[in-house]
Amino acid sequence: MSDKLLKSVVLRKRPDGEPRESDFEVVSGAMPVPGPGQVLTRNIWLSIDPYMRGRLSDRKSYAAPVEIGAVMEGETAGEVVVSNDPAFAPGDHVVGARGWQSHTVCSGRQLTKIAPGGARLSAYLGVLGMPGVTAYSGMKDIGAPKAGETVVISAASGAVGSVAGQLAKRAGARVVGIAGGAEKCLWVQESLGFDECVDHRASDLTGALVDACPKGIDVYFENVGGAVQEAVFPLLNPFGRVIMCGMVSQYNARAMEPGPNLMAVVGKRLRIQGLIVSDKPERFAEWRALAAPWVADGSLRFREDVIDGLENAPAALIGILGGKNFGKLLVRVGKE
Amino acid sequence: MSDKLLKSVVLRKRPDGEPRESDFEVVSGAMPVPGPGQVLTRNIWLSIDPYMRGRLSDRKSYAAPVEIGAVMEGETAGEVVVSNDPAFAPGDHVVGARGWQSHTVCSGRQLTKIAPGGARLSAYLGVLGMPGVTAYSGMKDIGAPKAGETVVISAASGAVGSVAGQLAKRAGARVVGIAGGAEKCLWVQESLGFDECVDHRASDLTGALVDACPKGIDVYFENVGGAVQEAVFPLLNPFGRVIMCGMVSQYNARAMEPGPNLMAVVGKRLRIQGLIVSDKPERFAEWRALAAPWVADGSLRFREDVIDGLENAPAALIGILGGKNFGKLLVRVGKE
Repeated sequence: MSDKLLKSVVLRKRPDGEPRESDFEVVSGAMPVPGPGQVLTRNIWLSIDPYMRGRLSDRKSYAAPVEIGAVMEGETAGEVVVSNDPAFAPGDHVVGARGWQSHTVCSGRQLTKIAPGGARLSAYLGVLGMPGVTAYSGMKDIGAPKAGETVVISAASGAVGSVAGQLAKRAGARVVGIAGGAEKCLWVQESLGFDECVDHRASDLTGALVDACPKGIDVYFENVGGAVQEAVFPLLNPFGRVIMCGMVSQYNARAMEPGPNLMAVVGKRLRIQGLIVSDKPERFAEWRALAAPWVADGSLRFREDVIDGLENAPAALIGILGGKNFGKLLVRVGKE
Repeated sequence: MSDKLLKSVVLRKRPDGEPRESDFEVVSGAMPVPGPGQVLTRNIWLSIDPYMRGRLSDRKSYAAPVEIGAVMEGETAGEVVVSNDPAFAPGDHVVGARGWQSHTVCSGRQLTKIAPGGARLSAYLGVLGMPGVTAYSGMKDIGAPKAGETVVISAASGAVGSVAGQLAKRAGARVVGIAGGAEKCLWVQESLGFDECVDHRASDLTGALVDACPKGIDVYFENVGGAVQEAVFPLLNPFGRVIMCGMVSQYNARAMEPGPNLMAVVGKRLRIQGLIVSDKPERFAEWRALAAPWVADGSLRFREDVIDGLENAPAALIGILGGKNFGKLLVRVGKE
């Protein structure tokens, strides 16, 4: 073990509006030593996800905020360095929610061992990890698209949206993505195989959506909110389902804007339902079993956007909240 | 058969905003004669329901509008006068969607015969009719309240709300009504047995709701929208369900006001779902079988608000849209 110091990113200040790098601090400390039954891991990858904005705020939410001075929460993938747990050996690849830090000590129960020979390690934070399961659970438990239906996915090039749309394609639906900028839209259509992708920065989002969805919208996977939601809602068909997964356009807002009038929910019998992936933990194993062969044979496509160095995690989070990432955003914390 | 003329109420003009009596016209015509297999009925009761406002408008909706010059749609209860259908005999009590008129000729398949000896005929338009089934379907298919949960019902003294709340009480929930005025609130608590009833005309609706719902709100049966919805939504608990049955406060609106920001739907995993009772026709027979004994033993309470004379049906509709009725609103079209 060559590393002598533990490096962590802690929260220093709750942001008001857009977070700043100065709201965080990189701190160093003594390398922790695993006790009986514990494991020391070295993090290789840190996942950066929009939900983390919620942890910076002490607004009431489904999860407790990160305390001031505490290490930022986040999913990590890495390897075992020292193990006092017979179930783990040095060199084992593991994933867990180990936070924004270079190493951690924890009980083996807090880690999931990744069998060798499968997908690359980072995939377990994206397509085979929390974002992939979120897409799967949203489509399975709420959206349930049928062949011939029209499914619209916002943030379509993101870690969740890219999987959600590919699942809807597998179900035989017409799939229309919404993404920011021509490059992302091109990738969503050409690489992911969506039928269309609409640029939400274009001047006439509603017109473009109407053109792309001539039969209206049956399922909407909501990751964005705001103007995108406003354009999508009037196009929803009777018995339409809306998977309310996130509204990243609102996460830095100081006050909530009003939403759509809900009268249409009655007449169209819409179902608008919220999704937090951890509510159905059984979906994780289900999804890994289902999707691993698709990743292996290349039929489930994904894209990673890598930023080097734990110290750049705050900038990465600030970037994802503004849609700067292109694909699953990862911080490379240590060498693979 | 002593009546010589058919009396009908036809739509003359689509209202802009609140309907006026001059938007309708009472017309007389020759009494129709039933053809082979047809039945002539005399309507005794006409149901007046808020949904009828939608039929006056040619705004796109789940149902076609009533055409200008056509007889207004509505549920009726009456008796058979002449029958050319062996399944019906003169004097049989029947219910059907026969419109705002004194008599109708139709196929027997468009009528449901009411066996003698059951509830009073008018009950088949209220507690045992469409409004009762609406409440039942909303609670069964969407709300599904559990013992100990808090259920809030808007328009609690109305035909739908009064049944919905009593069903939630039977499920063991704490039930809080919202109604307009002290008299209605008293009746909702004392006669229907709701745990509390909040007057939405009171100065601090939010404060009153917070007091009445110390554990938050798990199920909300939405009949009203507007300021009532605005007060209820922030109090919804995680995994809360909202039965979107109607939004009567908006029916006369010339333009839709914005609704709640949907961010809370994500974090709280809310389910907001629209309901149109005709989507599950099987619920009608189910509900009649379930509720008839409760009506017979007096344990399912209801209240009727009767207006005499078909010519007063337009005024009755205008009134229900402003919350003037107290209980199930009926027009007595003919003598029982």
